[in-house]
Amino acid sequence: MSLSAPVPEGDPDSLIAALAQAGRAAQAQLAQLGPERRKAGLRAAAKALVAGGSAILEANAKDMTAGEARGLSAAMLDRLRLDPERLGGIAEAVAAVAGLPDPVGQVIDRTERPNGLVLSRVRVPIGLIGIIYESRPNVTADAAALCLGSGNAALLRGGSEAVHSNRAIHAAMVAGLVEAGLPANAVQLVPSQDRALVGSMLTAAGVIDMIVPRGGKSLVARVQADARVPVLAHLDGINHTYVHAAADPAKAVAIARNAKLRRTGVCGAMETLLIDARYPESAGLVAALLDAGCELRGDARACALDRRILPATDQDWDTEYLDAILSVAVVDGLDAALAHIARHGSHHTDAIVTEDQAVAERFLAEVDSAIVMHNASSQFADGGEFGLGAEIGIATGRLHARGPVALEGLTTYKWLVRGTGQVRP
Amino acid sequence: MSLSAPVPEGDPDSLIAALAQAGRAAQAQLAQLGPERRKAGLRAAAKALVAGGSAILEANAKDMTAGEARGLSAAMLDRLRLDPERLGGIAEAVAAVAGLPDPVGQVIDRTERPNGLVLSRVRVPIGLIGIIYESRPNVTADAAALCLGSGNAALLRGGSEAVHSNRAIHAAMVAGLVEAGLPANAVQLVPSQDRALVGSMLTAAGVIDMIVPRGGKSLVARVQADARVPVLAHLDGINHTYVHAAADPAKAVAIARNAKLRRTGVCGAMETLLIDARYPESAGLVAALLDAGCELRGDARACALDRRILPATDQDWDTEYLDAILSVAVVDGLDAALAHIARHGSHHTDAIVTEDQAVAERFLAEVDSAIVMHNASSQFADGGEFGLGAEIGIATGRLHARGPVALEGLTTYKWLVRGTGQVRP
Repeated sequence: MSLSAPVPEGDPDSLIAALAQAGRAAQAQLAQLGPERRKAGLRAAAKALVAGGSAILEANAKDMTAGEARGLSAAMLDRLRLDPERLGGIAEAVAAVAGLPDPVGQVIDRTERPNGLVLSRVRVPIGLIGIIYESRPNVTADAAALCLGSGNAALLRGGSEAVHSNRAIHAAMVAGLVEAGLPANAVQLVPSQDRALVGSMLTAAGVIDMIVPRGGKSLVARVQADARVPVLAHLDGINHTYVHAAADPAKAVAIARNAKLRRTGVCGAMETLLIDARYPESAGLVAALLDAGCELRGDARACALDRRILPATDQDWDTEYLDAILSVAVVDGLDAALAHIARHGSHHTDAIVTEDQAVAERFLAEVDSAIVMHNASSQFADGGEFGLGAEIGIATGRLHARGPVALEGLTTYKWLVRGTGQVRP
Repeated sequence: MSLSAPVPEGDPDSLIAALAQAGRAAQAQLAQLGPERRKAGLRAAAKALVAGGSAILEANAKDMTAGEARGLSAAMLDRLRLDPERLGGIAEAVAAVAGLPDPVGQVIDRTERPNGLVLSRVRVPIGLIGIIYESRPNVTADAAALCLGSGNAALLRGGSEAVHSNRAIHAAMVAGLVEAGLPANAVQLVPSQDRALVGSMLTAAGVIDMIVPRGGKSLVARVQADARVPVLAHLDGINHTYVHAAADPAKAVAIARNAKLRRTGVCGAMETLLIDARYPESAGLVAALLDAGCELRGDARACALDRRILPATDQDWDTEYLDAILSVAVVDGLDAALAHIARHGSHHTDAIVTEDQAVAERFLAEVDSAIVMHNASSQFADGGEFGLGAEIGIATGRLHARGPVALEGLTTYKWLVRGTGQVRP
């Protein structure tokens, strides 16, 4: 039994166009069904993921066998692997989206004009969101749930490694949606792994409204380079923590260790530590990181702090290690720190540690990043930690949405104008 | 005396990159100078436009002479022409932007997390805005003022017809800005009319943050087709007015006449009239438009209403006349009207005339356009009429900003996170 649209014949562009048309039609139906029906659909999809667990795990076992045969790395196999516990977590995350406040229909502002016209801006779904992702099968469920939770239709294109897992997860979710009276095409999975289809998605301006790439840097870079559709993404998280002269030493050590080492592979991890030349406890700060097993690569003044610090090359300042490696520079005051961040940062998350409130406020005002922090670990850069309940990703572009993006970032608005017969003079 | 950066040598991409770099540096300075200094700069620029009036009018006379020699149409010459009154209006519009509420620094929302982190989203300028426009020299001043009023730097590229006028307006404004202590490069005019420079602006992703095209459909279409930088624009205003069965006949006539004929060349003008088959006064409605000198092109049922109505072709439903011509279709109820608009509309401005509140609310909810109106003329689609004080344009894209865009639409936001030493568990 297939719950999705039949696969159309023809070239990649025609296939994507047909899927997009079906998705847009489903999105229009969603709009008429209203938020409670969408929430019921999400809960039914979550239940179907649990009910269909054995089929999903069987499909995942196929992907794991194929992945091992293809010699995928242990890290990749771990990303791919599902077990009952992980699947339960995926289902819970889908149900949790149903519990989030619904942004659709929210009134942003309302004004009455002197001529009596009443204007309001009301949040509406963006439309059809394309998600292009790699080997993590949980993205199939997460992304679909966030799109549905904001009234959008989703067109999913997952990685080849997870093809069976993704199909099984998708089939279960769609069965749940249909049971709850939602259109099957609200969530579609691109039915072929032909790579040309990714190109067709990226150039489908006007029929796909936004693309969200989820995966490593090479995927995001390709999507950003080739897309004609607006892209919501971040390429790098070259995040700085600046320990100011007036930093509290205990906070500096705790924040630096957490920002770098709590999890080294996340986009919110610190990659460069800037230490003020007048900070009195710099030797203790770098020693704490070295003692915790972090490799440090420093400029000349940083290397003078501890013999274990390796000399940094020019390239280090522009590198996102995603590992227990950190570049360290000693800087002369706030302006030098701001200049370093402006030159080498990736506009993701940058932080200052200081007890000087005026310096903190200047840092918050002048650093041009999606997230700027004072006395906190950059690893808080996360939609869940920000209270958004989830996230489709973190955006470092300048338009539409910045930083962690969840339901609100998947909406746009329209102007409603209510009159009583007004004509323009 | 040149107040702008010297023209760099080299290919178009390098020239645009150098201008963009200078603009970005000036924008960073603007951020530090704060809103009052920007407002003072706008007022000084407005004064300088008046003080430099004779030089500007002389430059404009050169453009007019050249335009006449090149055989520009009367309409184009009128767009190009400046006189003391028009120049006074331009200066007043610049000064008026200084009187608008400043969006920069506005706190969008603020939350405190259970762990004590305080999060706020604060509006910040987008950065460097590129404006590509045609023969109207007033755009030089308008666009520069709106960019400055929202803390952005502007890179302007006007049409060849207005080259002398644009240079004179730009020089006067920059003199005013510099006098008020603002950086000269906050507003730059691309110093050559080489068409390749437009291409370089459109592909300068990462150094120009947004492009706003201002001009006719062919300019906007080219910009949308070639740009790698995000574009804020509308291509068409194929705006519908649906006269429902329960419309008040007096309102229907007044709104339809105003929406079509007040000014036929504006993007908010009605281009298609949809008349409900059950509306009892349809003959009077079309007669009022015909009597006012409007050409009507109708479907078979519309043609039956009045012998003066010409038969419409398929193409008419997708045509933005920008003239005293209107397509007219008779539709069977709200659903048919919604289907017609979904198929032929351009997501700009669509309106319903009805006394039935429930029908009006369905129309407002279901029409997917930047602006949806009830009992009002679509010619109200304008930033000034919406109370925004001005507009850089009307956007029909789905992301970032929709409908009339003024200062707020020229900003983005960043997240500020204020902690007391929190680390992530």
